[in-house]
Amino acid sequence: MDCLFCRIVAGEIPAARVFENDRVVAFDDIAPIAPMHVLVVPRTHIATLNDVTPDHDALIGEMLRAAATIAAERGYAERGFRTVFNCQAGAGQSVFHIHLHVIGGRPLAWPPG
Amino acid sequence: MDCLFCRIVAGEIPAARVFENDRVVAFDDIAPIAPMHVLVVPRTHIATLNDVTPDHDALIGEMLRAAATIAAERGYAERGFRTVFNCQAGAGQSVFHIHLHVIGGRPLAWPPG
Repeated sequence: MDCLFCRIVAGEIPAARVFENDRVVAFDDIAPIAPMHVLVVPRTHIATLNDVTPDHDALIGEMLRAAATIAAERGYAERGFRTVFNCQAGAGQSVFHIHLHVIGGRPLAWPPG
Repeated sequence: MDCLFCRIVAGEIPAARVFENDRVVAFDDIAPIAPMHVLVVPRTHIATLNDVTPDHDALIGEMLRAAATIAAERGYAERGFRTVFNCQAGAGQSVFHIHLHVIGGRPLAWPPG
């Protein structure tokens, strides 16, 4: 198992977990770009958004709800937050296990990169 | 019905549709910030990510798969693309009907705003 996020999910590599259930795990990004910068990942290994199948639909929805839950717990439900998926290296994806960036706590400019 | 995206879904306001099925509609953003800048919206009205319930999970997953499908059709499956949800005005949400920005075709910087 050489996937960094599979190893975090398995507890082999430590991470600052902020949320988890039987299907998703969330932890602080080690290179935060905002006061809140959490990554939400599925426990199951899915390399990129291109690999998401209809069987994963509910899992993806749960990832977005986890993002909203975490943002609410940190006081950003009303102030707002942004979620980002990067698909492929050309878009900035560096770990090939899908992960949802959940960002908040500072002004968020447009365009998003 | 005063929601702009509900009116686009209903066909009352024109939009450059690029994908649709019984659950989601996608169209070009009228203020594109990249060569590909599509918005994927659910036909059902959901104001913000904070309003997503477990009943919507599969719908959210389908929105992400629609994003990947559209990106692939435009040749960005391997070159990469970024998806963004803004939740609340403080994060840049301007229409209160959830919409997934699908962006590609130019270098995408980090942080994402």
